[in-house]
Amino acid sequence: MAEGFSHATELSVRFAETDAQGIAHNASYLVWYEVARVDYLARYAGGYKLIRERGIEALTTETHVRYLGAVYFDDRLRINVRVSDLRGARFRFDYLIERVNDDHAEPVADGWTLHATVDRATLRPTRLPDWLREAIERAESA
Amino acid sequence: MAEGFSHATELSVRFAETDAQGIAHNASYLVWYEVARVDYLARYAGGYKLIRERGIEALTTETHVRYLGAVYFDDRLRINVRVSDLRGARFRFDYLIERVNDDHAEPVADGWTLHATVDRATLRPTRLPDWLREAIERAESA
Amino acid sequence: MAEGFSHATELSVRFAETDAQGIAHNASYLVWYEVARVDYLARYAGGYKLIRERGIEALTTETHVRYLGAVYFDDRLRINVRVSDLRGARFRFDYLIERVNDDHAEPVADGWTLHATVDRATLRPTRLPDWLREAIERAESA
Amino acid sequence: MAEGFSHATELSVRFAETDAQGIAHNASYLVWYEVARVDYLARYAGGYKLIRERGIEALTTETHVRYLGAVYFDDRLRINVRVSDLRGARFRFDYLIERVNDDHAEPVADGWTLHATVDRATLRPTRLPDWLREAIERAESA
Repeated sequence: MAEGFSHATELSVRFAETDAQGIAHNASYLVWYEVARVDYLARYAGGYKLIRERGIEALTTETHVRYLGAVYFDDRLRINVRVSDLRGARFRFDYLIERVNDDHAEPVADGWTLHATVDRATLRPTRLPDWLREAIERAESA
Repeated sequence: MAEGFSHATELSVRFAETDAQGIAHNASYLVWYEVARVDYLARYAGGYKLIRERGIEALTTETHVRYLGAVYFDDRLRINVRVSDLRGARFRFDYLIERVNDDHAEPVADGWTLHATVDRATLRPTRLPDWLREAIERAESA
Repeated sequence: MAEGFSHATELSVRFAETDAQGIAHNASYLVWYEVARVDYLARYAGGYKLIRERGIEALTTETHVRYLGAVYFDDRLRINVRVSDLRGARFRFDYLIERVNDDHAEPVADGWTLHATVDRATLRPTRLPDWLREAIERAESA
Repeated sequence: MAEGFSHATELSVRFAETDAQGIAHNASYLVWYEVARVDYLARYAGGYKLIRERGIEALTTETHVRYLGAVYFDDRLRINVRVSDLRGARFRFDYLIERVNDDHAEPVADGWTLHATVDRATLRPTRLPDWLREAIERAESA
């Protein structure tokens, strides 16, 4: 895991995620972000399914990706992730994507996403519930 | 529109739909099938939204694609479609995908999909309602 | 077309672009950006294919999306686009996505992407060729 | 691994792979097939990259999926795969997709894909090279 991050998920670039430039398509990175977020929540906060079952939906309100170098089919990637801000109904994830080989890791992209929690029934903004905020704060202070 | 078909939808191959072989990815064709189905239902049966609002969900139970030739970024495609079978809770769409140019159309794929209608609340199989069956039969006998 | 933009492309949200939240998935917006860019280049600069044939590849180096409201299956969207910066080997597109109905347009997302031109053979950064820069400048000053 | 299959790959359903019906989209299954094929070739035949480096491209010429039951976000799936036919320039993969839980596996889809090998330079059909055919035959007779 990269320094300053609290969780990392590994995956291999799928052939379907490449495009005719011969590299991974720029939209694939948002899917990888999501895979890492889901994994983070599963590890620290009981999982995205639990959050939804408790009546909360987390919407994505902003996404940002900086592509630092081309990524190819079958590359092994490590998606480093942390929650860097958490207040009221909003929280932010930061990401660093690295290509990993036997002995080293090379940054290939970074960025962040913003999210807002809403009540599933009314779709109105709702504060992150205490149990979820506390679970994330524990993860980030570890 | 190709002979024997009752509806056709045109679209251009998106860059995101290609892969590192330089051609459209094999899964993209199922999305194009769907675009043509949605368009067919909008034209003849009040639209997919109306069907769902009336408490019916149409599940996809089988898909088949035969790839006849490579398809490239920005190719202009015509997705020909017809309903070829319709009984009880099941119906079948047939497809012929052509690449169209100024003066001719060249087949690049064909296939079919099977669907089953279920009650949205119970998810139990439910007969295609008469108004929908009749709308489709009118379209196909025109 | 929204004020301040030089081109707009319309499309309908595909069912495949939605997710289990019942809304369009956040990665779909990057694909719509791309559809609008391709359309812009086709109209003003001879098309993306021509650019590639002339030995230039345009890489995406940064993407940003701000999601202003949920977008649903079959929503009609207008992707407004303009080139807002153009220097050396780098250029920037700005976007405004609106949901359009009979009589009005409602903003649902905005953002921007950065791109760099490279020589296709060497993959080294290469200045935007004059013919392409001039075509874009003409489009933007119209 | 299911009886009669020579390889299996596990994955979890991504949120991006679901649609507004609340289940995995029908096109996602073709991507999972591909993930399993790539994994099969990596294990038994030196990998898809090696095959391409040796001047061979494998095209997908036919795909078939039978959806046996709904698949949901985060479901754990096992994609069982085998090569069931192999002659000249053509080969066929069979698939069985199971949802796996602690103590049992439930079939959720099955199907097959056909492929043809071509020379990367000329794109003409070319017999599967002996080393690749023998590697696959060893895998399947094990």
